[in-house]
Amino acid sequence: MILGVLGGGQLGRMLALAGYPLGMRFRFFDPADEVCVDDIAPRVRAAYEDVDALAQFADGVDVVTYEFENVPVDAVRALEARGARLLPPLVALDVSQDRLTEKQFLNGLGIATAPFAAVDSAEGLRSAVATLGLPAILKTRRMGYDGKGQAVLRSDADAEAAIAAFDGTPSILEGVVPFARELSVIAVRGLDGAVVCYPLVQNWHHDGILRVSRTPSPVVNALMQADAEYAARRVLEALDYVGVLTIEWFEHEGRLVANEIAPRVHNSGHWTIEGAATSQFENHLRAVTGLPLGLPQALGVWAMVNLVGTPPPLETLASLSGAHVHMYGKAPRTSRKVGHVTLCAVDEGYLDARLAELLHVVGIETGNTARA
Amino acid sequence: MILGVLGGGQLGRMLALAGYPLGMRFRFFDPADEVCVDDIAPRVRAAYEDVDALAQFADGVDVVTYEFENVPVDAVRALEARGARLLPPLVALDVSQDRLTEKQFLNGLGIATAPFAAVDSAEGLRSAVATLGLPAILKTRRMGYDGKGQAVLRSDADAEAAIAAFDGTPSILEGVVPFARELSVIAVRGLDGAVVCYPLVQNWHHDGILRVSRTPSPVVNALMQADAEYAARRVLEALDYVGVLTIEWFEHEGRLVANEIAPRVHNSGHWTIEGAATSQFENHLRAVTGLPLGLPQALGVWAMVNLVGTPPPLETLASLSGAHVHMYGKAPRTSRKVGHVTLCAVDEGYLDARLAELLHVVGIETGNTARA
Repeated sequence: MILGVLGGGQLGRMLALAGYPLGMRFRFFDPADEVCVDDIAPRVRAAYEDVDALAQFADGVDVVTYEFENVPVDAVRALEARGARLLPPLVALDVSQDRLTEKQFLNGLGIATAPFAAVDSAEGLRSAVATLGLPAILKTRRMGYDGKGQAVLRSDADAEAAIAAFDGTPSILEGVVPFARELSVIAVRGLDGAVVCYPLVQNWHHDGILRVSRTPSPVVNALMQADAEYAARRVLEALDYVGVLTIEWFEHEGRLVANEIAPRVHNSGHWTIEGAATSQFENHLRAVTGLPLGLPQALGVWAMVNLVGTPPPLETLASLSGAHVHMYGKAPRTSRKVGHVTLCAVDEGYLDARLAELLHVVGIETGNTARA
Repeated sequence: MILGVLGGGQLGRMLALAGYPLGMRFRFFDPADEVCVDDIAPRVRAAYEDVDALAQFADGVDVVTYEFENVPVDAVRALEARGARLLPPLVALDVSQDRLTEKQFLNGLGIATAPFAAVDSAEGLRSAVATLGLPAILKTRRMGYDGKGQAVLRSDADAEAAIAAFDGTPSILEGVVPFARELSVIAVRGLDGAVVCYPLVQNWHHDGILRVSRTPSPVVNALMQADAEYAARRVLEALDYVGVLTIEWFEHEGRLVANEIAPRVHNSGHWTIEGAATSQFENHLRAVTGLPLGLPQALGVWAMVNLVGTPPPLETLASLSGAHVHMYGKAPRTSRKVGHVTLCAVDEGYLDARLAELLHVVGIETGNTARA
């Protein structure tokens, strides 16, 4: 069984490391000079527009999957034209690559989102600000991640500046949800339609980048978990989805409001490598290859801290009790995720102590990751 | 950090899979046509006598380690002559490659073994049989593993046949220990001299091949664990050892009798990948690269079943609740280990039920792996 993976970043690397024990083989496609999978798997290095390279990549591959949602849809169509099977299906990319389509899709399934308005012109932006009020967030409809392609409009002056600078890029204005917490649910649907969901995770972001995840989310109750799972199931079934899909949520006044969908394995699920009966990576591979899904249960309590920029020395991280270190083989750069550390514990108190120690080592202030 | 590994079998494969998350890179050396690491890491394919190939292998490597104990000592000397650093140290190979030296070494540390006698001639064998009695096991001093190079002498006729057939290969005759159980302890010593030991594992063999391991061994008591750890510490310190070392034991009348030493990660420690706070593979890598050792504690209770010969379909194995499947990328062949499955559980009763199911699927009779 050979899997083709579009994208060779850290998510691809962790997919391969989960697949090797199952006897799977991997081939990656990525145009970048250096990528995280280079040490561990063969890669076709070419542009997504290079149809010959795509054909070479797809030759002999049993199934093609992807590790980032901004895969050019034309490349996928070229692969499908050559008989390659893509899972998760193309429609999931169509929906998730466009913030407007995504929100309309969610609302159509009865899943709440922040209020929003499409913005295609300076006048449209003025009108959207008038409707939604301030603060609000102006986002490009396409190609944003980790806080890129976004601007927060807090004041009338911010709004006027954004209106004056608006360059016609198809965009969306979103009302700000005054959330109590950010959560995410990772769900998997098998080729046979079976669905399993991991426990809700609580997430802390800084500068638009995920810094800390923790599960089971300390005060999530069973009803909120059930709500998240019910919504995830509706999304998966509406897309006839196969593989892992993540929904990020705001919790507002005790209810879940969907922020966005990621049709892939997700940073907030890295704890599942050691912390769940089956990792998100293995379950994605099981799904797209038609194997039965594995159990998603958490074993103990877990926290995950991203290493962003220049990480502490490996010696320091390895000396932390109960820490599982994951480096991605990337050169350090400002705001770049170069690895993560997962902490395991049998109770919350012990986890709190270990997490405080890790956050100190990583240089993150503890105030914003205290238990809610 | 680049590690050179002599041997590219499944133990090497699992070392690499444990090292990638730590940001380590690997280069293997193995003369075989196809080896388990070929999909996942670069390999130098050459004979151990090929000094140029060894030099190419060692070039730019930070440390050289090995995944099997029958590494030709001359190859190691050639590597060391070129400045390569070998860990575990050469003396560990010297001791463990020769069954006579090994037993003398253990006895010299006050660690009990089966009674034994060196055998170098037909007359010597006759005299050894007279001294030790029957049954006894005739083993070559070198190059035996998984029951190869061994003959059990049960009767006078067996002994006479062996005496007549004796070809002068340096050998050892061992008295048979009428053991109640077979156990093993996996111990690790860091570059700084720190030692950690995993819980004793109970092992079941068939035709000389390990079939099932289980931990924590159901009726091992704290004293026996302490005895095993004390012995392991003496062995590690006597060899100024760095890395993972395994001691296999017989339990006889409530006491531990050493069977053999393996200066490497071990099949009976595969459960540690999912079952311990730090796996044997990661701890070996931590040791030989000078990182602090990780915790060896078991999380829950665990069993491991080897897949020998033609394995059941992956679909079947993946459908077993709580099963972690590890395939080595090997073509099936009689008596060949092609993978293993680890089962996790929170209590013995649940583990018993899951293990019975797995053994049925694998086609192993359950009688000889019942709880002792």
